[in-house]
Amino acid sequence: MNPGDVVIGILGGGQLAKMSAQAGRKLSFKIRVLDPTPECPASQVAEQVVGSFRDPETVKSFAKTCHILTFDLEHVDLTPLFELKRNIRIVPAPETLTLIQNKFEQRQAFYKAGLPVPKFSVVSNKEDLEKKLPIVQKSLVGGYDGRGTVILKSREDLEKALPLPSLVEEYVEIEKEIALIVVRNNKGEFRIYDPVEMVFHPEGNLLDYLFCPADLSERLTRDVKELALEAVKAIGGVGLFGVELFLDKRENLYINEIAPRPHNSGHHTIEACVTSQFEQHIRVITGLPLGSEKLLSPAVMLNLLGEPGFYGKPVYEGLDKVLAIPGVSVHIYGKKETFPLRKMGHVTVLGETLQEALKKATIIKEILKVKGEVKK
Amino acid sequence: MNPGDVVIGILGGGQLAKMSAQAGRKLSFKIRVLDPTPECPASQVAEQVVGSFRDPETVKSFAKTCHILTFDLEHVDLTPLFELKRNIRIVPAPETLTLIQNKFEQRQAFYKAGLPVPKFSVVSNKEDLEKKLPIVQKSLVGGYDGRGTVILKSREDLEKALPLPSLVEEYVEIEKEIALIVVRNNKGEFRIYDPVEMVFHPEGNLLDYLFCPADLSERLTRDVKELALEAVKAIGGVGLFGVELFLDKRENLYINEIAPRPHNSGHHTIEACVTSQFEQHIRVITGLPLGSEKLLSPAVMLNLLGEPGFYGKPVYEGLDKVLAIPGVSVHIYGKKETFPLRKMGHVTVLGETLQEALKKATIIKEILKVKGEVKK
Repeated sequence: MNPGDVVIGILGGGQLAKMSAQAGRKLSFKIRVLDPTPECPASQVAEQVVGSFRDPETVKSFAKTCHILTFDLEHVDLTPLFELKRNIRIVPAPETLTLIQNKFEQRQAFYKAGLPVPKFSVVSNKEDLEKKLPIVQKSLVGGYDGRGTVILKSREDLEKALPLPSLVEEYVEIEKEIALIVVRNNKGEFRIYDPVEMVFHPEGNLLDYLFCPADLSERLTRDVKELALEAVKAIGGVGLFGVELFLDKRENLYINEIAPRPHNSGHHTIEACVTSQFEQHIRVITGLPLGSEKLLSPAVMLNLLGEPGFYGKPVYEGLDKVLAIPGVSVHIYGKKETFPLRKMGHVTVLGETLQEALKKATIIKEILKVKGEVKK
Repeated sequence: MNPGDVVIGILGGGQLAKMSAQAGRKLSFKIRVLDPTPECPASQVAEQVVGSFRDPETVKSFAKTCHILTFDLEHVDLTPLFELKRNIRIVPAPETLTLIQNKFEQRQAFYKAGLPVPKFSVVSNKEDLEKKLPIVQKSLVGGYDGRGTVILKSREDLEKALPLPSLVEEYVEIEKEIALIVVRNNKGEFRIYDPVEMVFHPEGNLLDYLFCPADLSERLTRDVKELALEAVKAIGGVGLFGVELFLDKRENLYINEIAPRPHNSGHHTIEACVTSQFEQHIRVITGLPLGSEKLLSPAVMLNLLGEPGFYGKPVYEGLDKVLAIPGVSVHIYGKKETFPLRKMGHVTVLGETLQEALKKATIIKEILKVKGEVKK
């Protein structure tokens, strides 16, 4: 193979595409991204075609210029891809994305494979919704970074209910939220990264920070890894996937969701693992051998979210101070505008021990703020 | 600081500029490179201005579009930079590059600072050259990757002598060749990376492979690091430098050369260290704090040199096989044409132990070959 002759296309040009493109450029693959926002993050390291990944004609003409097509986000128009896959290699397959795009279909696939999931059903009217409280309500399609998910505990909460029909799941008292990256190729070979433990932002269901390795017994770690692989197999997944799971108070494991692309829970792998999730992504979509997922160091990853009250051109306050801390790697995605809770970057901290990394992360959280030129 | 508002300019767009640009894009700095070859390696991840870094007018108009200027190679026309430095930040300073560009001046600076160097002088006529045999002859300016250096042991060798005047050095029986990266900022803060041991290609004085940590006693390692820092101070160096040293058969250390830019002997730092030399380069030229140089894993780095007899569009034979070896990271620079011994990429191997990494490196050397479409 001569990477310089291979054109990889990515639908979406945000930070996930940027970091995948970075990995691909290491081998000098040709990389292009389709994104409606001019000067999207990935355009710094890939060729951007400005256009909408929700428009079938645009997706079709973009895909025709590529040998391989993959995804920065799952909420794209899949219609043209079923024809296109006869001539270009699409990873993960459009069928897999179709299954993933609909949360009910996704759950069904895990359930049918005998994998543990919270009890779930589709609810189409308000009375049924009320009868099932307390529940977690999720929109059937769309929804990412916590959007499209609400917890409804009592009748008062009903005013924030999502439109119907929607997916509802039993409300489980969550003890820990866990995630990991799984890559699997069409030869059935796979790599399962060490699980991370996620801590969420009080507002917005958004990932605040995570640490690796997760605080789990050896047995549980093994179970989590096995379950994540089974989840990928249950959806016939070939490609790279982010699998989210949770533990209830009695240490029962449940599969939460799966994403058909690199995932926030794998960003630490750039500095902390032998092969980053992004390089792994490039390897699996191009048919190259899979790399080692070995963890080289304990790590903490913090998201850099836009500060509440700020908009417009971003200002990275405290950047200098934070870069002075040993073991700190800052990633700024290059988005032109900030708004509250927008993912503007992330910081990975390596430490001799997890405790050391967590201590540094707490300091970083206090110092590094993404503000904006416009205050509202 | 807002990285998106800062334009970093690099004179030269080869692999060193590419890898520095990769590091800069992590923080979304704006990065542009000046290079005469269209679609140079760095153009994949930076904006390229096509033009010659040896032409003063071109360098001047390029530099005026940047806030910060740095170097992918030292053999550029420095003349315009002395004026330009009043308005833009040039790191390392033009004065430092002037001193480095002339091998005699470089040696003099080390000598005057009392640092150990091989005996040296400038020779202007053939008789003097012959009298001094055996010697190492080096052209005063230009010369990199082993070009511009010849070993003349006896009168028969004189036919391969370089033009005069040139630098000559006593011929020292070299036991080991060592190199390391030193970064130093204008506050006097510095980081000294762990030394690597270099093994050279039998033809061409070209680096074949290296390993880190070097096989040196603790005391020698300390001495090497101190000496490298003194060498940087001796030339008033602020920026990132690659320092080459050697040990003779009696364990005497000598400074060989210094390069005012990221160096082949630091490529392993991308995978093996907390902060790569390229990120360190970006930090020091932008005035950001220096990062940790800590080594996370033993590493071996092999250069991927064009196979003798092959030219034209490169073909990377054995790429698949090599990527199947755990701990292997392949870098392909994206040069459009290969020729014998051209640096087309490199491979870094991490291992639990250095022995393991060296074993894998031996296998890789056998399997991975850069051939070309044209065979001569």
